[in-house]
Amino acid sequence: MSFTPFNAPLLGGLLGDPKAVAFFSVKADLDCMIRFEVALAKAEAAQGLIPAEAAQAIAKGLEGFDPDVRAIGAATARDGLAVPELVRQMRAAIGEPHAAHLHFGSTSQDLIDTSLVIRIKGLCGLLESRLLQAESELERLERAFGGNFLMARTRMQAAIPVTVADRIAAWRQPLAEHRSRLSELKPRLLCLQFGGAAGTLDKLADKAEPVAEELANLLGLNVPARNWHTDRSAIAEFANWLSTVTGSLGKIGQDVALMAQNGIDEIALSGTGGSSAMPHKQNPVLAETLVTLARFNATQLAGMHHALVHEQERSGAAWTLEWMLLPQMCVATGAATRNAVALLHGVTGVGRQAL
Amino acid sequence: MSFTPFNAPLLGGLLGDPKAVAFFSVKADLDCMIRFEVALAKAEAAQGLIPAEAAQAIAKGLEGFDPDVRAIGAATARDGLAVPELVRQMRAAIGEPHAAHLHFGSTSQDLIDTSLVIRIKGLCGLLESRLLQAESELERLERAFGGNFLMARTRMQAAIPVTVADRIAAWRQPLAEHRSRLSELKPRLLCLQFGGAAGTLDKLADKAEPVAEELANLLGLNVPARNWHTDRSAIAEFANWLSTVTGSLGKIGQDVALMAQNGIDEIALSGTGGSSAMPHKQNPVLAETLVTLARFNATQLAGMHHALVHEQERSGAAWTLEWMLLPQMCVATGAATRNAVALLHGVTGVGRQAL
Amino acid sequence: MSFTPFNAPLLGGLLGDPKAVAFFSVKADLDCMIRFEVALAKAEAAQGLIPAEAAQAIAKGLEGFDPDVRAIGAATARDGLAVPELVRQMRAAIGEPHAAHLHFGSTSQDLIDTSLVIRIKGLCGLLESRLLQAESELERLERAFGGNFLMARTRMQAAIPVTVADRIAAWRQPLAEHRSRLSELKPRLLCLQFGGAAGTLDKLADKAEPVAEELANLLGLNVPARNWHTDRSAIAEFANWLSTVTGSLGKIGQDVALMAQNGIDEIALSGTGGSSAMPHKQNPVLAETLVTLARFNATQLAGMHHALVHEQERSGAAWTLEWMLLPQMCVATGAATRNAVALLHGVTGVGRQAL
Amino acid sequence: MSFTPFNAPLLGGLLGDPKAVAFFSVKADLDCMIRFEVALAKAEAAQGLIPAEAAQAIAKGLEGFDPDVRAIGAATARDGLAVPELVRQMRAAIGEPHAAHLHFGSTSQDLIDTSLVIRIKGLCGLLESRLLQAESELERLERAFGGNFLMARTRMQAAIPVTVADRIAAWRQPLAEHRSRLSELKPRLLCLQFGGAAGTLDKLADKAEPVAEELANLLGLNVPARNWHTDRSAIAEFANWLSTVTGSLGKIGQDVALMAQNGIDEIALSGTGGSSAMPHKQNPVLAETLVTLARFNATQLAGMHHALVHEQERSGAAWTLEWMLLPQMCVATGAATRNAVALLHGVTGVGRQAL
Repeated sequence: MSFTPFNAPLLGGLLGDPKAVAFFSVKADLDCMIRFEVALAKAEAAQGLIPAEAAQAIAKGLEGFDPDVRAIGAATARDGLAVPELVRQMRAAIGEPHAAHLHFGSTSQDLIDTSLVIRIKGLCGLLESRLLQAESELERLERAFGGNFLMARTRMQAAIPVTVADRIAAWRQPLAEHRSRLSELKPRLLCLQFGGAAGTLDKLADKAEPVAEELANLLGLNVPARNWHTDRSAIAEFANWLSTVTGSLGKIGQDVALMAQNGIDEIALSGTGGSSAMPHKQNPVLAETLVTLARFNATQLAGMHHALVHEQERSGAAWTLEWMLLPQMCVATGAATRNAVALLHGVTGVGRQAL
Repeated sequence: MSFTPFNAPLLGGLLGDPKAVAFFSVKADLDCMIRFEVALAKAEAAQGLIPAEAAQAIAKGLEGFDPDVRAIGAATARDGLAVPELVRQMRAAIGEPHAAHLHFGSTSQDLIDTSLVIRIKGLCGLLESRLLQAESELERLERAFGGNFLMARTRMQAAIPVTVADRIAAWRQPLAEHRSRLSELKPRLLCLQFGGAAGTLDKLADKAEPVAEELANLLGLNVPARNWHTDRSAIAEFANWLSTVTGSLGKIGQDVALMAQNGIDEIALSGTGGSSAMPHKQNPVLAETLVTLARFNATQLAGMHHALVHEQERSGAAWTLEWMLLPQMCVATGAATRNAVALLHGVTGVGRQAL
Repeated sequence: MSFTPFNAPLLGGLLGDPKAVAFFSVKADLDCMIRFEVALAKAEAAQGLIPAEAAQAIAKGLEGFDPDVRAIGAATARDGLAVPELVRQMRAAIGEPHAAHLHFGSTSQDLIDTSLVIRIKGLCGLLESRLLQAESELERLERAFGGNFLMARTRMQAAIPVTVADRIAAWRQPLAEHRSRLSELKPRLLCLQFGGAAGTLDKLADKAEPVAEELANLLGLNVPARNWHTDRSAIAEFANWLSTVTGSLGKIGQDVALMAQNGIDEIALSGTGGSSAMPHKQNPVLAETLVTLARFNATQLAGMHHALVHEQERSGAAWTLEWMLLPQMCVATGAATRNAVALLHGVTGVGRQAL
Repeated sequence: MSFTPFNAPLLGGLLGDPKAVAFFSVKADLDCMIRFEVALAKAEAAQGLIPAEAAQAIAKGLEGFDPDVRAIGAATARDGLAVPELVRQMRAAIGEPHAAHLHFGSTSQDLIDTSLVIRIKGLCGLLESRLLQAESELERLERAFGGNFLMARTRMQAAIPVTVADRIAAWRQPLAEHRSRLSELKPRLLCLQFGGAAGTLDKLADKAEPVAEELANLLGLNVPARNWHTDRSAIAEFANWLSTVTGSLGKIGQDVALMAQNGIDEIALSGTGGSSAMPHKQNPVLAETLVTLARFNATQLAGMHHALVHEQERSGAAWTLEWMLLPQMCVATGAATRNAVALLHGVTGVGRQAL
C-alpha cells in the first residue's frame, strides 16, 4: 500500500490512467495558466484596456517560458495557491514596462479554474472515446454470444433464464446515456472563469463583457452568464457525472466477478490475475477494480458537494477541498473506462447454449 | 435529539417540510402502486393480454381499496418489500376469477419504482415553486438594498467593496440554473418502470411496447428506452440535483450567518431564535439550518452512488439503500427551500449606504 | 419507498428496531431533559446555589409534568432547539417564586447532549446483548456444522477447502472485539454535558465542580475533564463504533447471500422472502439488509465527522447535523443486530460433509 | 489544480507532509515486505518448517536486494497486487535450491497488510510528536495571552465574554485525548498479519502459533488473536482516529479564520498568504487548510467503512479501496498536524486586555 494510487509505480498500472493523469500534471496546469494570461492580454488590448505593445510583449515574453516550479511550490505553501508567484515570475520574464499590464483585472481564481476547465475539456474527449470503445466491445459480445442463455438473478437468487443479449443491453445502454448526459452538461461546464478580485471585474468596467467573450473564444471555452467563483454547481455536477460513469462500470465489474465464480462459470475471461500462494487461480482483477473505482468515486462525491458551501466571494477552505478530490475522480474515471475496455476485450465466452 | 428529524414533533418544524413529507407517506406510496395495477390492467386488456372484464373488475375492485397496512408491514419484514402482500390483498379485494389477471407480467420493482417516480414528479413541482419564491425574495432584496455596499470577502478577509446587488446575484443565479437543470433531467427521470420478473417483460412478448406506452400515458410518465431496474443513473442524478440545490442554499445560509455576526452586522434579520441561557441573543437559526441541510444531503449523496453498483437483475441490498436515503434527501431539500424562503423573507436590511 | 425507513409502517419491520427507536422517541428525550433539571436543582441546592425549597418545589412541580409537545415543536422551528420553550413550560408548572431557580447556570446544550448520552447508555446495553446473542447463534452453528467443509474464496474465486468453523470464526471474533471496544469507549462517551452559556459554568464559580459531580452521579454518568460542547470526538468515535459493528455484520450478510446462491448452495436458510412475480424464490432478505445497513452507516459516518468542525463555543449548523445523523445510525445498528440474530437463528445448514 | 495534492510540486508544501509521505513510498513498502520474508524464513526455520540454511540463504540473498519496480508495476496491473512478481524476483535473487522455501505458507495479503502496519507504527510516532508540539504551542499561547478576553460566540452570535484561556482549553484538551485514544488503539492496530492462502495457515499446522509469535517479535508487532484478513475493523478504527484528529484541528482552523476576520480581529497571525489581485491581504491560509483537511478525511472515512463489507476470505474490491484511501488519510493528517503547529507558532496575539 504505497502512497498515491494513480501515478505510483506499483499501482498506477492497475488503478491509474496515464492519459488522464497527463491532464493533471503540473506542466499541463501551468501551461494553461500561461495561455490564459497571453489570451487575456490580447483580449484586453483589443478593447484598449492595455497597450497593444504590452499584449505583444506578453505573448513574446511568455513564449517558451519555463516557470521555476520549485519556487512556485514554496510560495504556494504560504499563499495557498500558485498564482501570485507564477505571476511574479511571468512578469520577470516579460520585463518592464509591459510586465505591469499582465494579469490586469484578473485574479488567481480566474487562472486556476479556467486552467482546470481547459483540461477537463480534454479529459471529456478521452472519456467519451473510451465509453465508445466499451460500447463497441459490448456490441462484439452481443454479436458473438447474445443468443446464449444465462440465469437472470434477482436478490442473488436464480429468477428466470434470459439471453446474454438481455444482460449486455443492461450494461450498454447506460454508457450511451452517459455520453448524452455529458453533451448536455458541457455547455455549462466548459466555461471561462473570469471575475477579478471579487467576482465583479471591477477594473474592466464596461469592457468586461467583450473581453470575456474574446478571452473565452481564444481559449475555446463558453462564456458563462456570470463568473462562477462561488457557484460550484457545474463542477459538482461533473463530479456526479464521473461517479455515475464509474457506477455503471462498477455494476458491470460486479456482475462479471459474480459470473466468473467457480460453480457459476457464466463468463470466460483472459488476462486474469495470479496469486502468490495459489498459482491455479484466475482472479477477475479488472472486474474487481471497476467495483473499487466506483466506490472510490462515490466516496469522493460527498466531499465535492460539501465544497458547494462556498462562503462569501471566495472560500479558501472549500475551494482547496475540490483540488484534493476532483482530479482524483477524473483519473479514477479514466482508469475505470480503460479497465472496462480491457476487461470486455478479454471476454472469451458468455452464457451457455442451453440452460 | 429525538429519532427522525423530518416528521418528528420537535424537529419537524425546523428540519422537515410537511408538503414534501406528504409525497412519502405510506398512503401516497400505496395509492400510487394501486394506480399502477389499475392502469396496467387497462393497458393489458387493450392489447388482449387479459380479458376486458378482468380490467374492469380490477378497476372496480380497487376503487376505494384500503390496504391492511399492518399486515403489509409484517410481510415486508419477511419479503423485503411490500408488494407480494399488497398484491395478495388486492387480489382478495378483486375476487375470483379476475384476481388472477392482476399484476400480469409485472414485478414488485415495477410498482415500487414507478410509485416513487410519480411522487418525485409532484415533488419537483413543489421544489420549482419554492425556488421561484426564493428568487422573488432575492429580487425584492435587490430592489430594496441592491445599491448598498458591503465588503467583499475572500478567504474570509476583506477584499474590495461591492454592492449588495453583486452578492445577491451570486445567490440568485444558481437557483435559476437549478430549475433549468431540472428541466433537462425530467425527461429521463420521470419514466415508467416496467420490466417484469427479470427486466425482459418476458410474459408480454410483442405486446410489451404498446402496453408500456399506454401504461406510461395513463400514469403521466415517459416511456424509457429500456427498463431501468438495474440502471439507477437517473435516480443518482436526481439525488445530485437535490444536493446541488441544498448546496447553493447552504452557501446563502453560510453567508447570512457570517453577515449577521455581531461586529460585522451586514444584514438585519427578523424571526431569529432565542436562547435558554442568553435572552438577548438573536440567533440566525434558519441560516444555520441551510448549512446543516446542505451537509446532510452532501453526505447522503455518496450512499446513492454506492447504490449504483446494482448487481445482476435486481440487487436487494443496493436498492434498499436507496429507500433509506432518497426520501430523506427529498424532504431535506423541501425543508431547505422552505427555510430559505422564510429566511430571505425576514431580511430587513443588507449592507450599508457607504462603506 | 415511503418516507422514513425506521419507524414507518411498511419498512419498520425490515429496517427498524422498535427497541432502539424507543430511546429516540420525543417522550424519552423530554423525560431525560426533565430529569436533568430536577437533578441539577438538587445538586445546586446542596451547594447553596439555589434555595433547598426551590429544589424541592422543582422536583415536586415536575413530577408527572407533561410538556405541551406541539408548542415546543412550534418554538423549535424558531429557536432551533426545544429547550427555551421547554424551560418556559417547566417554569409555569413549578410556579413562582421557585421557577426562577430552574435551569440556573445551565444552557440548552447541557440538557440536549446529556439527554442524548443517557439514552445512548441504554442503547449500548441493548446492542451488547444483541451482539452476545449473535455470538451465541454462531457458536450454535459452529457446534452443529463446524466440521463441515466449504471452499474458501478469495477475490471471488475458489481458493482451498476450509472448515465451516474457519469461516464462522472470522464472523464471530470481530463481534466479541466490538464489545470490548465499547467497554473502552464508554468511560469517555457516557459523560455528563455541563458547561453553561459558553462552556465555562460562569455562574457557578467555585461550585462548578461539586455540582457537576453530584449531577453526574444523580444521572448515572461520568464527569468529563471538561465540558464537551465543542469537542464532539466521543460522539464521532461512537458513530464509528456503530458503523464498525454494522460493517462486520454486513460482511456476514454478504457472505451468506453469496453462499445462498443457487449453484453454490453452501448455506440453507429458513424464513426467506418471497417474490410477487416468482413464487419459487427464496430470497435471503435478512442477509441483504445487513449489507444495506452497513452501507447506510458507512455513508452517515462521514457527516458525523464533518460535524467535528464545530466553530466557536457552539455551532448551530454542525450540532444540528448530528441530530439528523446519529439517531438514525443508532437505530440502523439496532436493526442490523436484530436482523443478524434472526438470520443466524434461521440457518439450518452450512457447508458439506465432503468437498 | 494539478493531480495529486500531497506530493505534487505545487501543492505538496501546502497540503502534503514529506515525513508522512515517506512512510508510503514504494521503497518503504517494498522494504517492509522484504523484511517480512526474511523474518518469516527465520521464524519458520526455528520451527523446522524450512531448513536453517534456507533461512540463511534467504537473508543473505535479500540483503541489499533491489527490486525491479517497473516489472512489479507491470505485473500488478495484471495480478492486482505486487507480491507475486516481487516473490518471483526475490526467488531469483536467492537462487535455487533455497528460493523454493521463500514465502512458505504465506500469501500476498500477509506481506501487504504487515508492511502497512509497520509503516503505520512509524506514522503514529510522527503524529504523536506533532500533537505534542501543537499542545506546546497552545500552552505558550495560554501563558502569553490566556488572561486576555474575547467574546464567546454561540450560533455565530456574541454570547458572553470569556478568557482566551477558556477557548484555548477547548482547543487543547481534545489533542491530549487523541493521544490517549491512540494508546488504546495501538495494541489491536499494530498487529502482524499472517494467515496464509485462506486465513488458516493451513501449511504450518501446529507450528502456526510459534511462527506467528516469532515473526511478530522480529518485526516489532503484536500477535493478533486471529488473522485479520477479512476483519478490517482496526484499520477502519484507525481511519476514524485520523479523521477525529483532523476534525479537532479543523475546528481550531475554523475558529482562527473567524477570529482573523477584519472587523473581528481577535487574533494576530504572522506568515499569512498573499493575493495576486490584492497585495494588501493577509489570508489565513494555514487555518483554512485545517478545515480543508478535516473535510477531506471526513469524506474518505465513509469509503473505509464501505470497505468493511469484505466478502469471503479476501475481497479484491474492498481491500483495494483501502489502498486508495488510507495512505491519503495518513498524509492528510500529517499535513494537518504540521500546518497546525506552524499556524499556532505564528500567532502573535489573541484577544484583548478588556472587552
